[in-house]
Order: sequence, then C-alpha cells, then structure tokens
Amino acid sequence: MTQEAYREMWENLNLDIAAHDGLLGVLGKFYGDIYMSQKGRLQGMEYLDFVLSEVHGLRIKELQDAKAQGRKIIGTFCVFVPEELALAVDAVQVGLCAGADAGKEAAETLVPRNTCALIKSFIGFKLARLCPYTESCDLIVGETTCDGKKKAYEAFSEHAPMYVMEVPQTKTESARALWKAEVLRYMARLEELTGRKVTAEKLAEAIKTVNARRRALQRLNRLRAAVPAPISGRDVLLINQVSFYDDPIRFTASINTLCDQLEERITAGEGVAPKDAPRVMLSGCPMAVPNWKLPYVIESSGAVIVGEESCIGTRNTRDLTDESGQTLEEMIDALCERYMKIDCACFTPNAERLDNVETMAKDLKVDGVIQYALMFCQPYAHEGIKVEKRLTAGGVPSMSLETDYSMEDIEQLKTRVEAFLETVK
Amino acid sequence: MTQEAYREMWENLNLDIAAHDGLLGVLGKFYGDIYMSQKGRLQGMEYLDFVLSEVHGLRIKELQDAKAQGRKIIGTFCVFVPEELALAVDAVQVGLCAGADAGKEAAETLVPRNTCALIKSFIGFKLARLCPYTESCDLIVGETTCDGKKKAYEAFSEHAPMYVMEVPQTKTESARALWKAEVLRYMARLEELTGRKVTAEKLAEAIKTVNARRRALQRLNRLRAAVPAPISGRDVLLINQVSFYDDPIRFTASINTLCDQLEERITAGEGVAPKDAPRVMLSGCPMAVPNWKLPYVIESSGAVIVGEESCIGTRNTRDLTDESGQTLEEMIDALCERYMKIDCACFTPNAERLDNVETMAKDLKVDGVIQYALMFCQPYAHEGIKVEKRLTAGGVPSMSLETDYSMEDIEQLKTRVEAFLETVK
Repeated sequence: MTQEAYREMWENLNLDIAAHDGLLGVLGKFYGDIYMSQKGRLQGMEYLDFVLSEVHGLRIKELQDAKAQGRKIIGTFCVFVPEELALAVDAVQVGLCAGADAGKEAAETLVPRNTCALIKSFIGFKLARLCPYTESCDLIVGETTCDGKKKAYEAFSEHAPMYVMEVPQTKTESARALWKAEVLRYMARLEELTGRKVTAEKLAEAIKTVNARRRALQRLNRLRAAVPAPISGRDVLLINQVSFYDDPIRFTASINTLCDQLEERITAGEGVAPKDAPRVMLSGCPMAVPNWKLPYVIESSGAVIVGEESCIGTRNTRDLTDESGQTLEEMIDALCERYMKIDCACFTPNAERLDNVETMAKDLKVDGVIQYALMFCQPYAHEGIKVEKRLTAGGVPSMSLETDYSMEDIEQLKTRVEAFLETVK
Repeated sequence: MTQEAYREMWENLNLDIAAHDGLLGVLGKFYGDIYMSQKGRLQGMEYLDFVLSEVHGLRIKELQDAKAQGRKIIGTFCVFVPEELALAVDAVQVGLCAGADAGKEAAETLVPRNTCALIKSFIGFKLARLCPYTESCDLIVGETTCDGKKKAYEAFSEHAPMYVMEVPQTKTESARALWKAEVLRYMARLEELTGRKVTAEKLAEAIKTVNARRRALQRLNRLRAAVPAPISGRDVLLINQVSFYDDPIRFTASINTLCDQLEERITAGEGVAPKDAPRVMLSGCPMAVPNWKLPYVIESSGAVIVGEESCIGTRNTRDLTDESGQTLEEMIDALCERYMKIDCACFTPNAERLDNVETMAKDLKVDGVIQYALMFCQPYAHEGIKVEKRLTAGGVPSMSLETDYSMEDIEQLKTRVEAFLETVK
C-alpha cells in the first residue's frame, strides 16, 4: 500500500495528519538510532523492523479490513484483560499503552500533573489525534489496577468508548469470586458488542492461540539467557512490545523462527555482547512503544539486558492457561485462575513477586537488577523498596531509577547506570 | 493525673520522651495560635480544648485503663472500618491518621518520597515513637482505598500489628458481595482478638451509639449553616477530628450540649464572623489532627468555612445505618449497605460524590468551594478536576489547592486564597 493510501486511511481515522507525520518522522529516527545501529542482529529481527516500520500503516490497514469484515477492535492497557475472550468472539485485541511524550499539555487538562507518563501518553495521543489504534477501537477496556488509571479512565471515557473491569486487590476467595464475576460480565459485553457467542470450541482455540504466543516468548526468554547473550535486551523488549498489537498467530510463528536462529547462534557461541558484559535485569513498570530510553542507556553503557520483569515482559508470559478444560465453565475457571496468578503490584500482599524477581535474577545469573519506576507510579515505587531489600539480602546488586518519557534526564541516567555497572562487575 | 504519671505511661508505651515533649510543646503553641486566639467562641468548645490538651494524656490513660480491663484497642485510618463491630466486642476504636510532619525522613525509608503527607505522617509517628495511640493498639486495621495506603500498610506491618480490609473499587453486586465477605472476615478477626462474640443485642447497641454520634454531627452541620455563621470552620474541623478518638457516648453528649448553645446563639443572631463574610466550603482530602493549616489560612483571610466535604467531615457522618434490623444477619447487611454509600474517590465511577458536593455547596449557600488535595493523593486530585468542572457549570466558584504538612507554602496559600476570596464576594 502506498503512503498516499495510508494518508487517506489516517484522514478517515480523523488523525491530525501534520502532527502525525511529525511523530512518524521522530519515531523513525529514534528507531534508527536505537535499533538499526545495533551490530550482529539476527535476521529474524527484520520481521520486527518491518512491523515497526508499518506500525501505523499496514497493521492499521489490517484492523480496518477486519472491521470491514464485521470484526470488532478491542483496545487494552493491561495484561489483566483476557485476550482469549476477545479472540473467542473473533475480535482483534490491541494494546494501547503508549510510551512517548505526546499531547502532554492536553492530557493535563483531564488528569493531574502528578500522573505517570504512561497514562498521560495514552490520553495525550487520543486528544492530539495521533494514535490510529485508539481511533480504530470499538471498545477500550480498562481495569482498576492503579489509582492513576482507574480515575483516568473516568475522564478518558468522555472521549473514547470505555469499559472498565474491576481487578481485585487481594487474592482471597471472595476476591477471586469478584474477578470471575468481572470476567463473565466482560464476556457478556463482548458477546453483545460482536453479536457472537463465546463457545467452548472457540474459547479452547483462543486459549491455545494465546498460550502458543506465551510459549514462544518463554522459549525466547530461555534462549536469550545464554552466555554470551545472543540477542540484545532492546530487541527482546521490542518483541514484547509488538506482541501486544501484532496478529498473535503470525507473531508466534515469527518468534519461533527467530528462536531457531537464536539456537544456531548459541551453538556457534556467538553473541551480541562480549561474554563478560555485565548482565542486567530490568524490573518494574512496563515500557510501552517507543519507550526505549532506559534500555538504550543501559546497553550503550556496555551491559546487556537479559530479562524484563515487567508487564511488557515476563509478567505477561510466565503463566499459561490450563488447556485441559472441556466445558466452557471449566475453561473460564482456568482463565480466571491464570489471570489471578499475575504478580502485579496492585495486589496486597504481593509476596509472590518478590519470590519471582529473586528466582528470575538467579536463574538469569544477572550481575545486577535495575528497578525502573515511572514517576508517580505508586504501586511499583512502593514495591521497589521491598524488591531492593530482598535482592540485597540475596546478594544481588540492585539500583532504583525513577524517570518519565522526557529525554531531559538521559545524561543523568547514563551517569547513574554507568556508576552502578562499575560496582557490579 | 500529674504530668509525672503521664511521663511514666509514655515511657511504658516506649515513646521517645524528649522528642514527644518537643512535639507537645509545638502542638500546644500551634493550638494556641490557631484556636485559642479566636474571638466569640462557644462555651461548649472548652470541652474540645480540654480534650485536645489531654490528647496524649487523659485519653491515653483511658485507653490503658480499658486495656487493663481486658478491652482491646483498634486503630484505624479510614471511615470504611466499621466502628460498630469494634464496639460490639467492647473494643475501643481510635483514628490514627496523622496531620503533622514528624519522622518524615524515617518514613521515607519505608515508602517512596512521592507518597502523601498523611501516610508519611502515620509511619513517621510510629518510627519516631511519637504516637501513644499507635503504641496502645492491639490491632491496626487498614483498607485498600488507595495505592499509597494499600502498599504502605505492607511496609507498616513490619512495625505494627496490621490487618487489612479489602474495599472494592466499584459498587456492583459482586463488589458488594466482596465487601460483605470482608466485613464478616473482620468481624471474625475481632471476635478472635477479644474472645467476645458479636451478638444481635451488642451490635444493635453499637449501631445506635455510632448513629447517635452521626446525628449529633449532622445537627451541628445544620446549625453551623446559619447566617451569620455561629461557629468557625476551624472549630467544626476540630470537632470532627476529635470524633475519631474520643469516647463516642461522651463525645455525642458534649456535641449536643454545644448544639444547644449554637441554637441560642442563632436565635440571638450572633456569629463568629460578619454576616457578609465569604462562606467557603472545603472539599477533598481529610485533614487529620493537627492539620489546621489551610482552615487557618482561609479563616484568617476573612472568610468562614461552613462545610467540610471530606472524610473528617460529612463523608463520615452523612449516612446512618438502618436501625430496623432484628437479626444479626440483617444488621450486618445494614452495616454493609451503609458503608457502601460512602462516596470515596476510591470508587469508579463515583458520580454520587459530584452530586453530593454540588448539593452541599448549594444547601450551604457557599460563595465558593476550595478543593484541597494532599500532594500525591491521586484519587482526590483526579476527582478535583471533575468536581471543579461540575461546580463551575453550576455557577459555584471553585479553586483547587495542593499542599502537604510543611509550613513553607503558607504565604503562597494565603495569597492564592485571598485572590480567590476577592473574586467570589
């Protein structure tokens, strides 16, 4: 498809064409600097480069085609919204978390200044008419995982077709009952929206599709742990980011192909960084496209990132949904159970996250953990203090960084990261 | 009781005696400046002055006496924890919200810097060993009303006997079921702690006791609405603050006596401020003892505060518990229903609060509303934007202030408040 045809599509989506052109220009340059400049990348990454170059083009065209066929587009911000249900009614689910400073001033008319950059970004993209994903959505599904999002969705609902799921704050039996009721309420909403019924057959297929993607990403995470690291952390982060909006079946096949290449590389003893490069794990808040700032700072300081303990990372892929259910009821129970395993900081207590972080750091043989909190993200900032204590007690060096989407602190971050890396190796 | 005997009691409670002496000195001076300097106060306020002068003395002695009699002390931070249940097992419930900058540096080792002053204060008071209430508690009951408190309780639980109730985030049927389960779980915990059973008879009595206090405060709020205002907003705030830790029966009797005096004053056409003084309503975050900064700024600028739309204010007293239940089950249902009426910003949506704020502003014939948010309080900061829109649309002038417990911004607040008052009258 030509740029001219895309332009017409963007106009139909009511984007601010001039501002959007500017955004794509910046994004392209940013991607070139951070991604295309890497040496020794795998061939399989070309697929990701292509997907990203077409992030507002071909994939949006696919969404429009799906809509033309009567399929619905569901936007989400969180790993708690069960994609399996959307797939079971033939809808397309796309992640709407945003990772760039756009429309910030406009966003601050709807939400307080002391709101995290991720929230301001999705609101800003909407108000500035810059996001073709948001504009393509028939339903946008929020959740009550943090005060910032919970309250921002109220304001956002005046501008977009919002639906909010209540995620409980504990994992008691009563909280699980609430979650199941919310899953069923959402399922009914999807059925109403699409005019399709979730059947056992459709849901079983959807569970398999999403599990297959999780398995491919689990495989990737196992392989990247090799010494020397066969793939950069930036590239794995990009893969995780793309997993939220690409077609799941195509994506899974591509990642498995990439994993085949990784295996060859590992056999050959090749890596993207020297054997003795400091191995760093990132932990904390999600990094949405195109939030590549901190990974770039870390890897351009000579370290290699070998794990992302984050929603756009292992928090989204660690747990599979049990596939043994035969009836719709059994499958829904399996879904509920799977999502209640998520070790999000929205839960109290959330002891399993401490265990998971420590296990992951040890399994990946990291030299240090960098905890990343978006400024004003209270849940992860609080847990950061506990995670750091746990890691320190376990002999794993850890540092905490708080930042946002601006580029103003990049030199300061670099100084702190370099100082940390000197102490760990 | 002598100061010497109090000192022994404070030592037994493991307070930092020197720091505590300092605190009482500052508090006494602060109270003198803000409260005792007021002209035309009601005689009935002497009771409040006495209670406050004995806030760490006689009342703590009473708690120790209660403990010696085998009664338990329950500390709380939020209007969601049903005092009726504590009273039904002969326990004493006291509020632990704190309104002063103490132990802030110590608190910041447990919670992030970007945490509201109220949370840092209760943690700081504990870590600095300054609060005889906290030290007297057999159980401290938190709730999941905001991210800040929810996560702070995890850290706090390493220092105090914490128990946390899950407050849901919506008011759906499933959310109400969760709340009922939480009320029952808490009741069982209280029964276990005290070795006493909640019976229908005891709970009925407790419901009446707490309702009587609410009715007295409702009566106070109706009377204060007179023109000219017969009582200062500072004094009513103090009354609301004291309601959280004084004996409920004694407190109710004292407030009713005060209300009798108010009626006489209203009949005589007397007030604490001129008839044409700007009438201001405060709306937003709770103000815990001794957080009197903003009310002092407002009233010393010539306005009179005629309403507190806040947890330490009408949010705690607006709704009564239905008293018609005969069985324990019916009473518990009535309790659950009453607490689910609270229009806290923790809920999404929370449309009833917008209605309540607007109704209250109109009923009180206010000239303006000052919205008060503690810095980093995300729920009320978000709602502040919506409340301001609603009030503006309804023709009620409104301004929003964000502050904390430091005194550094007092001149700045004064300038902003004075500028606002000039526009409203």
